[in-house]
Amino acid sequence: MLLVLFRRGQCPETCSDARGRCPGILAHPSASDCGTVATPHGFFEEESELMSDTQLQAARAGDITPEMKSAAEREGLSSELIRREVAAGRMVIPANRVHLAGKLQPLAIGIAARCKINSNIGNSAVTSDVRGELEKLQTSIRYGADTVMDLSTGKSIDEIRAAIIADSPVPIGTVPMYQMLEELGGQIEDMRPQHFLDMVEHQARQGVDYMTVHCGLLREHLPLAVHRTTGIVSRGGSLIARWMMAHGKQNPLYEHFDDLCAVMRAYDVTWSLGDGLRPGCLADASDAAQFAELEVLGQLVQRSWANGTQAMVEGPGHIPMDQIEMNVRKQIEVCHGAPFYVLGPLVTDIAPGYDHITSAIGAAIAGWSGAAMLCYVTPKEHLGLPNNEDVKQGVIAYKIAAHAADVARRRPGARDRDDAISRARFAFDWNEQFRLALDPETARAYHDETLPQDGFKSAHFCSMCGPKYCSMGITENLRQLTVEAKPQASCEDGGARHAGS
Amino acid sequence: MLLVLFRRGQCPETCSDARGRCPGILAHPSASDCGTVATPHGFFEEESELMSDTQLQAARAGDITPEMKSAAEREGLSSELIRREVAAGRMVIPANRVHLAGKLQPLAIGIAARCKINSNIGNSAVTSDVRGELEKLQTSIRYGADTVMDLSTGKSIDEIRAAIIADSPVPIGTVPMYQMLEELGGQIEDMRPQHFLDMVEHQARQGVDYMTVHCGLLREHLPLAVHRTTGIVSRGGSLIARWMMAHGKQNPLYEHFDDLCAVMRAYDVTWSLGDGLRPGCLADASDAAQFAELEVLGQLVQRSWANGTQAMVEGPGHIPMDQIEMNVRKQIEVCHGAPFYVLGPLVTDIAPGYDHITSAIGAAIAGWSGAAMLCYVTPKEHLGLPNNEDVKQGVIAYKIAAHAADVARRRPGARDRDDAISRARFAFDWNEQFRLALDPETARAYHDETLPQDGFKSAHFCSMCGPKYCSMGITENLRQLTVEAKPQASCEDGGARHAGS
Repeated sequence: MLLVLFRRGQCPETCSDARGRCPGILAHPSASDCGTVATPHGFFEEESELMSDTQLQAARAGDITPEMKSAAEREGLSSELIRREVAAGRMVIPANRVHLAGKLQPLAIGIAARCKINSNIGNSAVTSDVRGELEKLQTSIRYGADTVMDLSTGKSIDEIRAAIIADSPVPIGTVPMYQMLEELGGQIEDMRPQHFLDMVEHQARQGVDYMTVHCGLLREHLPLAVHRTTGIVSRGGSLIARWMMAHGKQNPLYEHFDDLCAVMRAYDVTWSLGDGLRPGCLADASDAAQFAELEVLGQLVQRSWANGTQAMVEGPGHIPMDQIEMNVRKQIEVCHGAPFYVLGPLVTDIAPGYDHITSAIGAAIAGWSGAAMLCYVTPKEHLGLPNNEDVKQGVIAYKIAAHAADVARRRPGARDRDDAISRARFAFDWNEQFRLALDPETARAYHDETLPQDGFKSAHFCSMCGPKYCSMGITENLRQLTVEAKPQASCEDGGARHAGS
Repeated sequence: MLLVLFRRGQCPETCSDARGRCPGILAHPSASDCGTVATPHGFFEEESELMSDTQLQAARAGDITPEMKSAAEREGLSSELIRREVAAGRMVIPANRVHLAGKLQPLAIGIAARCKINSNIGNSAVTSDVRGELEKLQTSIRYGADTVMDLSTGKSIDEIRAAIIADSPVPIGTVPMYQMLEELGGQIEDMRPQHFLDMVEHQARQGVDYMTVHCGLLREHLPLAVHRTTGIVSRGGSLIARWMMAHGKQNPLYEHFDDLCAVMRAYDVTWSLGDGLRPGCLADASDAAQFAELEVLGQLVQRSWANGTQAMVEGPGHIPMDQIEMNVRKQIEVCHGAPFYVLGPLVTDIAPGYDHITSAIGAAIAGWSGAAMLCYVTPKEHLGLPNNEDVKQGVIAYKIAAHAADVARRRPGARDRDDAISRARFAFDWNEQFRLALDPETARAYHDETLPQDGFKSAHFCSMCGPKYCSMGITENLRQLTVEAKPQASCEDGGARHAGS
């Protein structure tokens, strides 16, 4: 399947957006969702599109790109700060030129920026379809996912990915290994380096903004994983391990790292250097295998920078609370400040069915410690693939974690929303509380379970104690007596009641 | 209503338990649930019961009580260590003699013991009844609550409390202020110190193991709370504030602290010194009002010890992550090591409907920092009273937090269950994973959503990737090649998949 670029501003169709670009650009081979039929109208190359600088190269050259500008606006930071952070490699702006020509609204991921969260969607051999995955995409975005990874391994992978990219204002990540393995009929031993390079090129042309590649897992690391409680739990890592064992050779993705950089650079795809040896349980956390791979990832970060490509580094997984900060600091040091993109981590293994909670605890601490992006975990973790409701639960748990981390890091303005909802709580402005809540519908529904009537939306007490126990009148009284004129007081009585007071 | 004690070993009825004590003792005035009719058979006093030492007095005298022994067994600690900790006031064993003569299985709360969790139940003017509250009690115990507080404020308070105590193997806590206010017709201004003393005596005779009393909120503290974003959010604290304003006098519970100690000592009721000025939002966290009250609580801890009574101290509430450890350390220092019993804390205010998660994050960090017991928060926090399902969700979130805290504190054996479930995961022993899970039914149900057939309970892959992507065979292959004999490998593929690898 050949996918080519529209020339900027030259899409002759009415579908052109304000910048004269077809919003459906490359999203579908048929370009069907740009409202046109697949005519030759957009189907010619514009090499110059592929020759321009990456965000990293531009930043180093001292240029502030439009993407840095808009990222700066979204963060409330100066464009120059964003440029400096990108130039230093401490920040990435995952923005494939192809997706950028579509609906992508660029954002920055790095320790200087607001803590980001990612949600994983994607079908498997047995579940979901294009419609189902687009629904998960919209749910992810609605509840605040900053990026979305399409981990599809089932049917119509290209169709699903094209639809997701066409629909998505947020950066899209993938694991090219999955589709490549599908096309190899599941036989990883048959992989030749060119297969992988071609798949990366193919997905880059589709507009994927960042890709997970397991380049850091080396042959000499394998013995370190043998005595683990749960061995190698990363699929990508396992597949590379199998290939290395079958061929008795070094990791081909490591050997061809510079070739891969050339493809990434052409589209400005951001590296998400995968941790194929991440621990799969508390017992394996922070072990020799994990940190041996991390050392290699640190070297690859420098090579990716030398090649002009942006890079972030993936991290575990399952870590006891007391090891999380150490893990984040170590990654920042070993990987020269490249943004750390962590999965959870889960802080206990005993709660399958609730791993959005076990991992939100770890994620909050990781974000507070300096992780730049938190990959969500859903209630279905370890048990099955998340459905749309699981995606919602996972995204909300991670918005909580990332926001709590921003507050704990004392980012300017991070607490504004907390203070606003607290004032609304104090003023008994229930509708305003619902409006400011991460999930207004659920907050309203819980409130209405006991006090459904509209009148109670402004009632100066709540169902938790009723008027008699409400501390509102009391604090008001207190204010009057202390001659402090302030109109309202509080009945934050969930907390009150639950403290048993 | 007069409630009296059976003489140990003298209950003439067949209902007597192994230790010759009527399990229904004092639980009902009618003693109906000990399987007998309410005859005079058990209704005579045995004052000696009330004259014996408290756990604190016994520990100081060098005596190891049966309660210290059983607590030691449950903790896997030596009886002498428990005795030393209780003697030092760093540990409490909330065990009202009356409840102890019933179903109570004593446990220890303190920094040297496993981190405990409390669930709050209780009806309100509009919701629930005896049956409903007993259901919440059983749900709390089933999912692992170590203590339960009955915060009933509605009808038949005595009947509900008696039934809960009769049914409960875990310590029961209350807030005597609530029932006293009911009996005063809601007019706190009408309270005379004797009203409160009588209510504490009444509830102590019913068998309540620990009581929240707001003795530390003083008149001079009130101006400190006036400028807060959410004022005074504790009901007990608000009521005391109103009383002090109405009468222009000092907190009567502070003034009569020694009289209250005398009642507590008679039954060995443990103090839960309430924090009437705890912050109700992030903006008010760690402020002058909170810490001024904490200083007084520290003095009262020493007075409670001087009076031979056990004491723990309650804490907030709403605290940003970066202030939690400081709060715990400060309480331990100011309150001379008395066990810290924290509510949450919530680490953000923006997620009503999900405050079991916002607070489980704070609770895990608090427990890791040294809090002895975590008071749960349910999804209904700030919105309504928890129903039975909310109680389950709250307890599970807090079991996760407390367990993660024990693991992070590296308590001996704390990680055993994590390691066991990880080995089962590695071995694809799904039934064993379910058995070891905090909520086996939910874990099984999620797994069965995609792979319901029994055969899949032992299948060496899961629905997240299926056989082709399973890292199991790969790691097995690796083990064979590296001549490491170990039978199975892993497909912990939720994590794998969700890491995008």
